[in-house]
Amino acid sequence: MSLVVQKFGGSSVADVDKIKNVARRVVDAKKHIDHVVVVVSALGDTTDDLAELAAQISRTPPEREMDMLLSTGEQISMALLAMALNELGQDAISMTGQQVEILTDKGHTRAKIRHVGADRVVQELRKGRVVVVAGFQGVTNEGEITTLGRGGSDTTAVALAAALHADYCEIFTDVDGIYTADPRAVPDAHKIDMISYMEMLEMAATGAKVLMARSVEYARNYEVPLHVRSSFHSGVGTWVKSEDDIMEKAIVSAVTHDFSEAKVTIIGVPDEPGVAANLFGSLAEANINVDMIIQNVSERARTDISFTVNKDDVDKVRPIADNLVSSLGAEGSNYNDDIAKISLIGAGMRTHPGIAAGMFKTLADNGINIEMISTSPIKISCVVRREDGENAVNMLHEYFSL
Amino acid sequence: MSLVVQKFGGSSVADVDKIKNVARRVVDAKKHIDHVVVVVSALGDTTDDLAELAAQISRTPPEREMDMLLSTGEQISMALLAMALNELGQDAISMTGQQVEILTDKGHTRAKIRHVGADRVVQELRKGRVVVVAGFQGVTNEGEITTLGRGGSDTTAVALAAALHADYCEIFTDVDGIYTADPRAVPDAHKIDMISYMEMLEMAATGAKVLMARSVEYARNYEVPLHVRSSFHSGVGTWVKSEDDIMEKAIVSAVTHDFSEAKVTIIGVPDEPGVAANLFGSLAEANINVDMIIQNVSERARTDISFTVNKDDVDKVRPIADNLVSSLGAEGSNYNDDIAKISLIGAGMRTHPGIAAGMFKTLADNGINIEMISTSPIKISCVVRREDGENAVNMLHEYFSL
Repeated sequence: MSLVVQKFGGSSVADVDKIKNVARRVVDAKKHIDHVVVVVSALGDTTDDLAELAAQISRTPPEREMDMLLSTGEQISMALLAMALNELGQDAISMTGQQVEILTDKGHTRAKIRHVGADRVVQELRKGRVVVVAGFQGVTNEGEITTLGRGGSDTTAVALAAALHADYCEIFTDVDGIYTADPRAVPDAHKIDMISYMEMLEMAATGAKVLMARSVEYARNYEVPLHVRSSFHSGVGTWVKSEDDIMEKAIVSAVTHDFSEAKVTIIGVPDEPGVAANLFGSLAEANINVDMIIQNVSERARTDISFTVNKDDVDKVRPIADNLVSSLGAEGSNYNDDIAKISLIGAGMRTHPGIAAGMFKTLADNGINIEMISTSPIKISCVVRREDGENAVNMLHEYFSL
Repeated sequence: MSLVVQKFGGSSVADVDKIKNVARRVVDAKKHIDHVVVVVSALGDTTDDLAELAAQISRTPPEREMDMLLSTGEQISMALLAMALNELGQDAISMTGQQVEILTDKGHTRAKIRHVGADRVVQELRKGRVVVVAGFQGVTNEGEITTLGRGGSDTTAVALAAALHADYCEIFTDVDGIYTADPRAVPDAHKIDMISYMEMLEMAATGAKVLMARSVEYARNYEVPLHVRSSFHSGVGTWVKSEDDIMEKAIVSAVTHDFSEAKVTIIGVPDEPGVAANLFGSLAEANINVDMIIQNVSERARTDISFTVNKDDVDKVRPIADNLVSSLGAEGSNYNDDIAKISLIGAGMRTHPGIAAGMFKTLADNGINIEMISTSPIKISCVVRREDGENAVNMLHEYFSL
């Protein structure tokens, strides 16, 4: 018996005609797949519209109430899609996160899934029904409604696919799949047929927006194959799978860029044990995600610590950095949000030591200065000036023959 | 400890400013009432807008899915109102029908309340919180979301007031209270200070639209005093109470009218036992509500049967009537939707036998012909021509010095 989970995002269910279109696609899929579970996001901009209503009432609405509010978006789209499927003669039933038993922790607005029950989903599938599940939402043990944060519907889909031991999980979106670079920046970019979870994770972490890192991580942990494809046509998209299942590994799979970060430097920090722990501990307490971190070996008992954060968090970083500067007697801090992070991703890098050198040379040959470097076994990221960003991506895309 | 349930309808929470206004009223109420529970309807026309989306997808959407869809409206308004209350410094929490434990039968889109748990409501009230409850919705024992049908939020409020042994239940609406007649038809109509459940029930059944009969019946059964008042100012509205609690009983309390009905006559029906049972049994099976029924004593072994139904149901009545005409060998049927039902309501009628005569005389003196008459101990209804309707209401309002 084949079982597939299909997830349709907000742009795929933006209006009545699009919902009908999704229903037709699901009915088509049902012809050759025994059991189909569909996860839907809220219609178009519904979530933003609801958040805007809340913003007009309070700048700091209780997060529990935000979840009450935002979870209605998916409940609307799931009901409409179930209606559209029934209208096409396909028996279908919609289910809330609570009815599916998507149990989460109590972290309102960014809850984490603890357990997926799905017994009732199985019962309904056995009746020949398509089950339409509200993405993005879950419920605590106490019956409180939670939401999963950004990209939450993808996570719902992958978690359900894992719980149901689905053959695979299809993520329908408004692009054709995963590209070797952002096609808006690199005209030569092309669709990747197959990529590993690890590469996809690095891509998500370095600026690729099609999939959120969280859902990929979930897919990797439970080995759920993902198929990222267009909701507008039936062409094959990109498969995201375990590395072991990919025969032909590319040395470099993609080059990504990210213009959303800012670089913060604490200058002239006394080189004493505990300084970094103090700084990054304070940032973590303030719920600020730090991406790259660089600390140079000091030669004069003082050192500079640089790190990158999301631009939106810079205002929250300032008081923490100022505090540290005065308590440690550092020389000062500076902030630069005019940067681009350019990353090269490829599982084959591990066994091909020349890639980093090739990247640095390409940038140098094009007169692009590197401000920060960070590496993982399958990724190299360089921070360059914002104005060099697009050129850097294009040159690297060309140099590595992507 | 005082406990009051307040219900705000859709027009009272139509936009962000109105929601903030409701929050201020609730905070004011909380100053002199220990515990306040607020029941809200969906924002403005949300329910109609959602139903319209469904209609674009299917002419016969599954009722279960309609409930999934429509129940989101109240979930949105309750979350926004809870936010607005918190913003004013009043600790508040919203709760769905499921969280309150408003258990209903499985009659999707018109479910009946079987039990109200409310334990968690009490817990939250004890913490000093205002509890904001989604009106109109409930849940079955199986965890399926249901809605209560038209006027459902009033029923939610009254049912909660009963379960919580509230001092009273306030229904905030866009009119000042219950009037002696519809002020749009009768300029002299004035607000009634106090009226009995039974009179209110008769008024609701004969055209007064402020309260649905169902919530009044619930209030009567559990003796919950109702206070129907304006959501736009703080003036006293109309109290609906047990007859025993009303000292000064008016002989005639109100005159109502209803232009929504049509009269159906089956002509020349053989006067045999079982004919009426057959006809009205068939209508009941087709879920058609019949209001007035008249059958004249026959003098020629044949009789005419007349009844009134909602105009919207006439097309459903036709085939049933046609069927009966041919199977019984009746002479034919006719339909008239150009009628008005005018009713006089008053608990004092029981002990004042001249009221009916006064009504008939007033109509006759004004040249208004009566087509049907129906009475209850506290009500007299007459069907007249539609064009005479407004004149009839005004003349009766004047004659009985309302």
